[in-house]
Amino acid sequence: MAPSLENEVPNKSRVTVVGSGNWGSVAAKLIASNTLKFPSFHDEVRMWVFEETLPSGEKLSEVINRTNENVKYLPGIKLGKNVVADPDLDHAVRDANMLVFVTPHQFMEGICRKIVGKIREDAEAISLIKGMEVKMEGPCMISTLITEQLGINCCVLMGANIANEIAVEKFSEATVGYRQNKEIAEKWVRLFSTPYFMVTAVQDVEGVELCGTLKNVVAIAAGCDLLMLFLPFYFLKHFQLLFLSNGEFGTDSTGFVDGLEMGNNTKAAIMRIGLREMKAFSKLLFSSVKDNTFFESCGVADLITTCLGGRNRKCADAFARNGGKRSFDELEAELLQGQKLQGVSTAKEVYEVLNHRGWLELFPLFTTVHEICIGHLPPSAIVEYSEHTPKFSLLEGSAQFY
Amino acid sequence: MAPSLENEVPNKSRVTVVGSGNWGSVAAKLIASNTLKFPSFHDEVRMWVFEETLPSGEKLSEVINRTNENVKYLPGIKLGKNVVADPDLDHAVRDANMLVFVTPHQFMEGICRKIVGKIREDAEAISLIKGMEVKMEGPCMISTLITEQLGINCCVLMGANIANEIAVEKFSEATVGYRQNKEIAEKWVRLFSTPYFMVTAVQDVEGVELCGTLKNVVAIAAGCDLLMLFLPFYFLKHFQLLFLSNGEFGTDSTGFVDGLEMGNNTKAAIMRIGLREMKAFSKLLFSSVKDNTFFESCGVADLITTCLGGRNRKCADAFARNGGKRSFDELEAELLQGQKLQGVSTAKEVYEVLNHRGWLELFPLFTTVHEICIGHLPPSAIVEYSEHTPKFSLLEGSAQFY
Repeated sequence: MAPSLENEVPNKSRVTVVGSGNWGSVAAKLIASNTLKFPSFHDEVRMWVFEETLPSGEKLSEVINRTNENVKYLPGIKLGKNVVADPDLDHAVRDANMLVFVTPHQFMEGICRKIVGKIREDAEAISLIKGMEVKMEGPCMISTLITEQLGINCCVLMGANIANEIAVEKFSEATVGYRQNKEIAEKWVRLFSTPYFMVTAVQDVEGVELCGTLKNVVAIAAGCDLLMLFLPFYFLKHFQLLFLSNGEFGTDSTGFVDGLEMGNNTKAAIMRIGLREMKAFSKLLFSSVKDNTFFESCGVADLITTCLGGRNRKCADAFARNGGKRSFDELEAELLQGQKLQGVSTAKEVYEVLNHRGWLELFPLFTTVHEICIGHLPPSAIVEYSEHTPKFSLLEGSAQFY
Repeated sequence: MAPSLENEVPNKSRVTVVGSGNWGSVAAKLIASNTLKFPSFHDEVRMWVFEETLPSGEKLSEVINRTNENVKYLPGIKLGKNVVADPDLDHAVRDANMLVFVTPHQFMEGICRKIVGKIREDAEAISLIKGMEVKMEGPCMISTLITEQLGINCCVLMGANIANEIAVEKFSEATVGYRQNKEIAEKWVRLFSTPYFMVTAVQDVEGVELCGTLKNVVAIAAGCDLLMLFLPFYFLKHFQLLFLSNGEFGTDSTGFVDGLEMGNNTKAAIMRIGLREMKAFSKLLFSSVKDNTFFESCGVADLITTCLGGRNRKCADAFARNGGKRSFDELEAELLQGQKLQGVSTAKEVYEVLNHRGWLELFPLFTTVHEICIGHLPPSAIVEYSEHTPKFSLLEGSAQFY
């Protein structure tokens, strides 16, 4: 037993937050207020910090421990004196039985490799990470990666959670997705809930996690006026579907790629079509996914929040304003100060899954977002695109998912 | 047979739009483009105009017929030369077999009384009207009112439809709700669909119609910062529900009525809670209502559009800015130039249904909107309110609806 565990109630849960970016820091703050409040948790919250040297020459972890603030990723917010920054990953995780993972998703495989065999056997995990790893054999959810690599159960927490708003204690909601163990889910709910952060649990890990991932793709669409160009295709496809047996409707599309400035109706339509594709995609990947999950904070609310003002939106706006001439990578570097733009990489990963499984035509919004992001879709391509006959049998077969 | 029907293909459908406000005029424009296009419709679209004398001294219907514009409710937009304004209600409806109702909902009972027995027996109706009539025996949907009073089938059309955006042909979607006859639904879809207005049909009249009605109540919530005051109550209620068997969570609510300026998370949370109450309320009233209807344009998309910029939002904003000192009636008259603010009256009607059936505690958002609108809910009342123990058995019993 580690020295710090002496003289303690033996069953207290110890929490470590793996990650200390913007959202990770806010998560630590939420958790730290609850570990002080509830006797079932050990007061101290350990937070693994990927060490950086600040312009002042100081180490980030040292500054966090001295000032109680993450001066780089969450300046101006006190995390709680019981938050201890720790740059040593092995040391940070070894005593914890509650592990909160909140890093960029591309780091998770490396982190798992590093800590496997070094964590408590009774540890439980929760992932706040949005994104998935796509491999040859198919998509791999982060919660699955954690369970497979570390041999521990993993819940997820997603929701309408702009970190900076929660940091200043504006009312928000979130959703915990769990697999079987409802008691564990309730423990996570208790650890995160505060009067301004309302958390509910649903038994649908994959649904909740995919919501958190896929909404970033839709946010790019809603932020990107260029996507107006895609709507004719979408419209024609579905219209033909409805009236395939009816000769009255022509296919002339003159006039409806004119307006590039979206109205609120159009934005709402894109969000709705996006939510529908999120639901359809999730259910095609995992038959266990529940429709009602998309009514939770992780679904419709997170989608709205992200489309109204997330970082994907910010970059997509800039992308559209520059007429696609500057890449998303460039804009990301300029606008996000080191944060990652998840929608672009997720769009690519989703595209790979769709392409691999022959589902591209079922998901015109997801597909088009990726093709615009990589610059493969010039305006003129839309017209040719919209002339393709949709694969009716495929679409018909998928009606249950919509 | 009326003289104007001579020398025609006998089976052509004749359309009359009953109503000529902002949305009615846009509907006439959409329809007029399709009656010209499809041979199954008679070209002419008759539009009943509630006659008004304009400041110039001219009659509104005469100006519409001379200029082809509804200069009062949709200035600057040509309706189509085949739209004929008619101030005589009996004359306007008598030859039509497709009746489109789009008036303020409080006019519908009088209109039905006036035209009963004067319409074609084979007439089909569609209602674009948002709102319901609440009577002693319970709520009465407008589509039901039309069916009962006129003895004809009635579909509904609802969706994310800010009229002025559709008028300038920005891309939008809408949902037709139908009862049994899918062919009729498809005929309505064909009559309304244009390349910039995508309509789909679902077999759920009540669900679609209630969406169109109830979203106005939520929009007041999302537009009204005062509603931040209600969230503590909502939160406590649900938190207690989750952890009733767990003594760890206290009920102190200090600090979370501080921030009155909403973040995007909060707005999204209110929209989500609102959508949930819309769904729960609809399903309690009509067991036939389908969850998936709330994913259609009439559900989530219309809610988003209305919360982002509808007229309810506009007035609620002004109401909140004035600290509740000016009534909604006053603001409506000032801001909406004769248009009606439906959210306030719908909130009242919903409240009456909830109160009558003992459901008030199940719908904290709907209930609170009404109590704020009528000035019954001063900030201090919230604290007392939140101390009430929720009726757990009732809430538990209703879990299936959420």
